[in-house]
Amino acid sequence: MKRNLTNGTGLSNLAAYCTNPSVKTLVKRLLPLLATVSLFGAIHSRGQRAPFENDLMPLPSTLNVSGDPVAITSAFALSFKGATNPLLIASARQLLDRLEAQTLVQLDKNPRSSAEAILSIEVDDTSMTRPTLGVDESYSLDVNGAQGKVLLRAKTIFGAMHGFETFLQLVQPSPNGFVIPPVHIVDSPRFPWRGLMLDAGRRYMPVEQVLRTLDGMAAVKLNVLHWHLTEDFGFRIESKKFPQLHELGSEGQYYTQEEARNIVQYASARGIRVVPEFDIPGHSTAWFVGYPELAAAPGPYHVEHENKIFNAVMDPTRDSTYKFLDVLLGEMAGLFPDEYMHIGGDEAKTVDWMANPAIVIFMQKHSLKDGKALQAYFNLRVQAILKKHGKQMVGWDEILEPELSSDVIIQSWRGTEFLGNGARQGHRGFLSQPWYLDHMYSAAQMYAADPLPEGNTLSPAQAKLVLGGEACMWSNHLSWINEESRIWPRSAVVAERLWSPATARDTVDMYRRLDATSLRLDAIGVNHLVEPQRAFRQMAGSEEGARKLALFTSILQPVDYRERSKEQHPSTVTPVGHLADFTAPDPSPRRTLPILVDAYLHDRNPEKHEAYRTQLHGIFMSWLASSSAVNALAATRPLIAEVSQRRGELPQLAFLGLEAMAYIESRNAPTSDWLTTQKEVLSRASLHKELLDFVILDPLNDLLKASEQSQKSQ
Amino acid sequence: MKRNLTNGTGLSNLAAYCTNPSVKTLVKRLLPLLATVSLFGAIHSRGQRAPFENDLMPLPSTLNVSGDPVAITSAFALSFKGATNPLLIASARQLLDRLEAQTLVQLDKNPRSSAEAILSIEVDDTSMTRPTLGVDESYSLDVNGAQGKVLLRAKTIFGAMHGFETFLQLVQPSPNGFVIPPVHIVDSPRFPWRGLMLDAGRRYMPVEQVLRTLDGMAAVKLNVLHWHLTEDFGFRIESKKFPQLHELGSEGQYYTQEEARNIVQYASARGIRVVPEFDIPGHSTAWFVGYPELAAAPGPYHVEHENKIFNAVMDPTRDSTYKFLDVLLGEMAGLFPDEYMHIGGDEAKTVDWMANPAIVIFMQKHSLKDGKALQAYFNLRVQAILKKHGKQMVGWDEILEPELSSDVIIQSWRGTEFLGNGARQGHRGFLSQPWYLDHMYSAAQMYAADPLPEGNTLSPAQAKLVLGGEACMWSNHLSWINEESRIWPRSAVVAERLWSPATARDTVDMYRRLDATSLRLDAIGVNHLVEPQRAFRQMAGSEEGARKLALFTSILQPVDYRERSKEQHPSTVTPVGHLADFTAPDPSPRRTLPILVDAYLHDRNPEKHEAYRTQLHGIFMSWLASSSAVNALAATRPLIAEVSQRRGELPQLAFLGLEAMAYIESRNAPTSDWLTTQKEVLSRASLHKELLDFVILDPLNDLLKASEQSQKSQ
Repeated sequence: MKRNLTNGTGLSNLAAYCTNPSVKTLVKRLLPLLATVSLFGAIHSRGQRAPFENDLMPLPSTLNVSGDPVAITSAFALSFKGATNPLLIASARQLLDRLEAQTLVQLDKNPRSSAEAILSIEVDDTSMTRPTLGVDESYSLDVNGAQGKVLLRAKTIFGAMHGFETFLQLVQPSPNGFVIPPVHIVDSPRFPWRGLMLDAGRRYMPVEQVLRTLDGMAAVKLNVLHWHLTEDFGFRIESKKFPQLHELGSEGQYYTQEEARNIVQYASARGIRVVPEFDIPGHSTAWFVGYPELAAAPGPYHVEHENKIFNAVMDPTRDSTYKFLDVLLGEMAGLFPDEYMHIGGDEAKTVDWMANPAIVIFMQKHSLKDGKALQAYFNLRVQAILKKHGKQMVGWDEILEPELSSDVIIQSWRGTEFLGNGARQGHRGFLSQPWYLDHMYSAAQMYAADPLPEGNTLSPAQAKLVLGGEACMWSNHLSWINEESRIWPRSAVVAERLWSPATARDTVDMYRRLDATSLRLDAIGVNHLVEPQRAFRQMAGSEEGARKLALFTSILQPVDYRERSKEQHPSTVTPVGHLADFTAPDPSPRRTLPILVDAYLHDRNPEKHEAYRTQLHGIFMSWLASSSAVNALAATRPLIAEVSQRRGELPQLAFLGLEAMAYIESRNAPTSDWLTTQKEVLSRASLHKELLDFVILDPLNDLLKASEQSQKSQ
Repeated sequence: MKRNLTNGTGLSNLAAYCTNPSVKTLVKRLLPLLATVSLFGAIHSRGQRAPFENDLMPLPSTLNVSGDPVAITSAFALSFKGATNPLLIASARQLLDRLEAQTLVQLDKNPRSSAEAILSIEVDDTSMTRPTLGVDESYSLDVNGAQGKVLLRAKTIFGAMHGFETFLQLVQPSPNGFVIPPVHIVDSPRFPWRGLMLDAGRRYMPVEQVLRTLDGMAAVKLNVLHWHLTEDFGFRIESKKFPQLHELGSEGQYYTQEEARNIVQYASARGIRVVPEFDIPGHSTAWFVGYPELAAAPGPYHVEHENKIFNAVMDPTRDSTYKFLDVLLGEMAGLFPDEYMHIGGDEAKTVDWMANPAIVIFMQKHSLKDGKALQAYFNLRVQAILKKHGKQMVGWDEILEPELSSDVIIQSWRGTEFLGNGARQGHRGFLSQPWYLDHMYSAAQMYAADPLPEGNTLSPAQAKLVLGGEACMWSNHLSWINEESRIWPRSAVVAERLWSPATARDTVDMYRRLDATSLRLDAIGVNHLVEPQRAFRQMAGSEEGARKLALFTSILQPVDYRERSKEQHPSTVTPVGHLADFTAPDPSPRRTLPILVDAYLHDRNPEKHEAYRTQLHGIFMSWLASSSAVNALAATRPLIAEVSQRRGELPQLAFLGLEAMAYIESRNAPTSDWLTTQKEVLSRASLHKELLDFVILDPLNDLLKASEQSQKSQ
């Protein structure tokens, strides 16, 4: 079949097919509207691309562009210079598989001689089989268009893997097929600890979902899976030494040791360390179901379902507790080869300690003045156990006490200030707040945070103790409808903050690249786009209904964690069950509608103004169409029915926009009654309601003001 | 949060929010158009439902409705009456998990006493651990609204599993939450062999994809996974006896024995038998890469990539061949517990036999007059080997020779006539053609086929030998962009043909239920809807572009298998690589547009006519919007660029529709020039081109004729 590359034919070309003048007029009037319905994305359309548009994420340390691109044809092949190892070979094979899936160009997967190959891979040290903290992750990538060759160099296989991901991000369509643009990249990470925490304790995530999350992490150069494996709600890993931990403490939802080993191996093959967390002495109810003798209170215990913090806590005064931990953590040390193990240590309640006379006597005897001191005593003993098993200890903020030996790593959930405090006390540490993914911060807010913020007062030696950070996916409110869309694409922004130079700060550019990254994650099988679409299809009962519902929810987002706790009383565990659970944080209209409104109000070019007007008009009309459909669905869908206030506000906001535009266009003054009504509409819409916040009120307010002022200025 | 059930507010209610008269007018004019763009689905909208709409698939043998529904609340629980077994318990647990996912109502998963339970499960025989051919699969389901109870009875656990699927299909939203309608069902299958064949030989399907395909099969009561494991292109199962089979014959893409065992176990737990196929003596190149001594010609052999039939064939004259098969099939008999094993036997070429003097001499010595006779000799010896290992033989049409013992099952790929021939010769058999999923037949065509068609001349005894049939997914042209959308939802129609009474023949009703089934398959994780959307997103580079592309391709389908062979020369293996591979067979506009056009042309009710007019107009306008977007994408997407003829025809067809409607509405006569031009447009569009066929030409032709005639009749 001949590949005939025809250039795009626009609206005027289309009309050439039309012979009926009245039809032609109608089409000319209506088509722009149809073409732009819900077309927020047009602002950042990737349809037509410049010769090289840098949409890499994370941004590399240095990148230059010169020379010609290299085409991806069926002649594409790779070669290894020097030594190799099985992980590198497997990773290179995946590069080819993914390149083939991306381009649909059939590739020969066998390595060739360097003369025959397009991509040469040169790795200095191929001895490693798993990544370790601080391993050299640097690489360089040189595209030589004149020779039609690409050279990837790295110190370690893990650097090479990062280079592979950059290579795949660079591939882009061109009029002559796919190419690699002529870039010259020298790249290495700013921080060595770039993590994602998964909370398996609250919600078991199926193995294949963990694996594709690892794929997503590798794609954005995250290198630590912090696996929160135990909680009041579940003990999620098989123990052969104490089988009642998982048998009685997980309701059947746990990872077998074989599955865990496979996950660790899969992570290693992607340059990702797995740091398991066994959260003690609090958050440990699930341990006590099978082993109540570990607890400070007599029990009995059952796996908890309520969404709150429990009093259940280990008894740190009995030697038997430490014997148990010695055997268990020894077993787990064998299962998880990484040099670090997380012991949680957060939110341990002291109620059960103080209610237990034996514990109180123990505290007096050992001069432990309060619960904090008792926990510090516990931590010291646990640390000794970990050392015995070759592990260094990691814990949350709370474990930071003067007694703690300085090789313990502190994970800060209280922000950069506390991270700095740890560093001043000689502790290595990493940042996790404001990167809690369940707190519903926007990507921009997460991007603004920095483990070493500008103006910090740490000495260079102290700054070196700041290892990086972690995005944390607490799973209090997760289910199949929102698990992956809470994690992605926002975690990619944390990945960039931790990898790229501190100077990468341009939020507009970040969002442009994040959109591209989101599609790349989709391509490798991450379900953050698939998942909400499927959920809406199920709720609406049709593809078309799903789209209308998605349009409604795209201008809403879930209230933040604090607000949710206020609005929703977590009397029984209800991980999901409201429309808010179907909505995504930071939906794109939050950032695209202000841009469009601004352009509409301020661009004096009449043709552009008309285009913006049409697009904005189409958006408000689409809200009305969505409103119709969503109200119809509410009749049989309780979750939609219950957001009656938000449903009622949707057409009000649409008409606010349409009418403000009508006043602006006609230069007629709105009445003060109308203005008062609209201000009330905005004011009511701005309240937290039904677990949902509107995200597009600022640009509507701008339109409202403009409708008021445009009159005055004429 | 108060659940406030507000009734839907239509367009007129919406306009109440509007105070600006010109805006109100504009909204009234434009909103219907926006609300219906691409709204083919509205015809079969599931938004508002009758008290009970039967959208079960497959249809049960008998179903009555009486009494009140039973609500699904958090009090829902189940109980087992009498004995149980681990498969049944696991299946019941899945019922609860899926019910919870479907309704978002949190359920207690522990079985209760029958007094406390809503759903009681009563199974007579709980001794089986895997299904066998002909096992009793019947069940009954009684919803007793007065008592608020549901009773499920079955003879075997596999019958109960089918009942669970029916139960889940019955759950539907109502104004007061989810309910089970008051049905009384007595159900059992018409045929015992209801299969899906997966061609792993041509394309390795990842394990998790096989598993979710099994989920899909269970959902529609298919009960045989026919696993085509070996081909010229790959030997996909690990052999510990002859490891070079998978090591040299699979390019690394094979199932380990552990994976195969897990798949068999997963299938058993869903009432599905796994029948492996080892295709011999032809289609066997991949065997000879490691073991060339099995072949009739000296080789050497390599794993084939070209999409054609090869001469490579086993040497049926050497005892060593049978010794090898004895060991291998013995090993596989242990891995696959089902009593049946498929030996293929199709398309064995005789060229290599005739070119081998030793084989020719052997044939003369044994009075084997031709290749056919030699294959019959081979089959008899293979059958003896299978018998020894406790297996009955299954093979394709070609093995049907008079010498064949009558307990061999014949799979007919040549249609019902050949199936009947087998039965007349005393062979059991099942139908697989016209159920080849790669032949691109519509669901209606597949639904029309029957293993025992009306008017067949088989005696009752012969008819009993017809066991059922199989949908066959040959994977010549599959990849991640279309694997699941080729299988689903069409296989559900085959499932209904094989389960439901022969009288189930209503195609319109079938499609209504198929739409519901498609969404249910989506809910359990089958990716037939997700996969093409993801593929379009990747191709278009944006969600919006993907929708426009999907709209274009929704009125096209891939040419059939025969036409594809003509148009595309399979000189090298190119499983995918054309826009045709992104399109689905039997897209919904093929059946919905004729309904809409017919209603538009013939419904005399002015209000309805106006609604149909608006909807039809919106569809043609959306084709134009799609055309614009698709042509823009063509600039940098070779796969879109190469369908320049289809892209050129799209606006022509849209204008044909719009202009015909303009003539009909205005009652102006079209010119004969215009008519001639439009007929030429239709005629050109009706040709096979670029591997694509338009599916909406008939209703356009109806519009054209009406535009011509409406004038005459006025």
